[in-house]
Amino acid sequence: MSSQERKKSRVTLLDVARHASVSRATASLVLRKSPLVGSETRARVEQAMRDLGYVYNIGAARLRVERSQIIGAIVPNLTNPFFAELLSGIEEAIGATGKVVILANSGERVERQSMLLQRMREHGVDGVVLCPAAGTEPDLSEQLAAWGMPVVQVLRHISVDMDYVGVDYAGGMRQAVDYLASLGHEKIAFAVHGPFHSAYRERVDGFRDAMLAKAFDPEILIHLPPQLGEIADSTHLLFAKATQPTAVICFNHLVALGLAAGLHDCGLTIGRDLSLIGFDDVADAEAIRPRLTSVSTGPTAIGEMAARLLVERIANPDLPPRRVVNDTTLSVRQSCGRPA
Amino acid sequence: MSSQERKKSRVTLLDVARHASVSRATASLVLRKSPLVGSETRARVEQAMRDLGYVYNIGAARLRVERSQIIGAIVPNLTNPFFAELLSGIEEAIGATGKVVILANSGERVERQSMLLQRMREHGVDGVVLCPAAGTEPDLSEQLAAWGMPVVQVLRHISVDMDYVGVDYAGGMRQAVDYLASLGHEKIAFAVHGPFHSAYRERVDGFRDAMLAKAFDPEILIHLPPQLGEIADSTHLLFAKATQPTAVICFNHLVALGLAAGLHDCGLTIGRDLSLIGFDDVADAEAIRPRLTSVSTGPTAIGEMAARLLVERIANPDLPPRRVVNDTTLSVRQSCGRPA
Repeated sequence: MSSQERKKSRVTLLDVARHASVSRATASLVLRKSPLVGSETRARVEQAMRDLGYVYNIGAARLRVERSQIIGAIVPNLTNPFFAELLSGIEEAIGATGKVVILANSGERVERQSMLLQRMREHGVDGVVLCPAAGTEPDLSEQLAAWGMPVVQVLRHISVDMDYVGVDYAGGMRQAVDYLASLGHEKIAFAVHGPFHSAYRERVDGFRDAMLAKAFDPEILIHLPPQLGEIADSTHLLFAKATQPTAVICFNHLVALGLAAGLHDCGLTIGRDLSLIGFDDVADAEAIRPRLTSVSTGPTAIGEMAARLLVERIANPDLPPRRVVNDTTLSVRQSCGRPA
Repeated sequence: MSSQERKKSRVTLLDVARHASVSRATASLVLRKSPLVGSETRARVEQAMRDLGYVYNIGAARLRVERSQIIGAIVPNLTNPFFAELLSGIEEAIGATGKVVILANSGERVERQSMLLQRMREHGVDGVVLCPAAGTEPDLSEQLAAWGMPVVQVLRHISVDMDYVGVDYAGGMRQAVDYLASLGHEKIAFAVHGPFHSAYRERVDGFRDAMLAKAFDPEILIHLPPQLGEIADSTHLLFAKATQPTAVICFNHLVALGLAAGLHDCGLTIGRDLSLIGFDDVADAEAIRPRLTSVSTGPTAIGEMAARLLVERIANPDLPPRRVVNDTTLSVRQSCGRPA
């Protein structure tokens, strides 16, 4: 390092503020790109930074900044009760630390998610629990790191550089397939829907691996539409393939709810004419009759864990990235029987 | 007004800032109680305000402040799909204006709601759509007015001094009772649950008025527990009163979902053994079989309307308080028949 560079690195934010004739607080707001600073003031402070060769020390700045005590949470779909349960877990754990949670819905739109992250940053949230919208690029993690924004990925992951709390989806698929196999089923369909992301891939791959391990046909994938009513009306798709399944594993709660209604409409009795296994096991599943046998992914516990990891990450930004993958449990109820 | 007072009222925020040796931006942050200002600076600015007799002009300040383009929405219960649909309406309408929505869940806790409003204020949201937690005192409206915080009450109201967007709950009850009466029902129960608030009161009063107008017994109120699973397990309460109902009106979606499952467990066929009418008619109701006849309150449209009123209120703080009460519609499906 030349003496000139050393000199530059010793320029403080107070020097910048004085040079620009603003307070240190205002200069700090400019650094954090706060919308509270007018464009003229911002330009003056930025010019002063260039004039003096100011180098922003993110690590030191983080120690100085007063925390907002606000945590952001961004999910892709609020009308899915699975995310409502996840959020209740996040709120529970964050609330216990005296912080509050603000939520936002990306609607599975990457640009919208980008804007939400930007606004949360401008308004000084301490960190974000993010379930990335389908199609989010891995380099989002570099952007967030450059901002110095602590983030925990939840349920879906886009980068190994950020903390992740999720579910052993493949293990859950194995539990479902093994249980159905124990009842004598071999022709098992997987009814899927929704956009493509890591949790989708892991469920489908997990299903195929579990079927192959039993030497069953791993390709009875039924693609269903996104909305509940449409799913119910698409139930005939279960029987449109060459191989007629005797059991169906549902991608998530919505698929189970829709197919349960649709099978009723077809005059079929669940558990007798066709076995059905749910995935996720949210509280709303308690209204399905016959009671649904389901792989439970424990969304509330996942939310709590993600919140705890985020609080640790905020306190200690230099921790290496962590990865927590929860086991699933199979809740056996009344929706599966022997093959018809 | 004495000349001394006139002099005081002409003290500007810039005067205060100079007196306290801070920037105008910092003095402004102090005024808005931003946590971004350190306690020492805050004390110095507040002392300067007292020394100079500074009078804060909320109206003028509002015109000066740069908008954050962030709208807050606070609901009492995120796991109720009704609120998820309301929020999607709010997001739709706010998104169309280029602003973003941050959400928070009061969990029906008044202190928590208070803290959320405070934090949203500190972080400069432009306004809030609020569904007040049960037990919220009417004087919250004075507090919010003192802050200069634009707020629209939605679904529940606590004060006539703030805008309100809601539903003609009484009209909905009349539709349900009149329809059941047209099928020959006279012994109609109202299955309720949840905390006490304006929407609860209006539904119960509306039910009683509609029953009295037909000269039916208006007192067959069945009180059910809060959670879905508990509701299903409490279905026997429908038959625990002296008068055995032939039809049941459900307080909301959760009650309908729970009772539909519970009646199945009791071996009763909905529409034949007992008629059932839902209230709210959220998308999840599409999974109930037989298909549920329901009073629809249109939560998405209510969310859109509340968002529109809030945007107008932010642009024009001096509008008189407005009150929009949407009509309900009765969706006749398959869950009601003639009395058994």
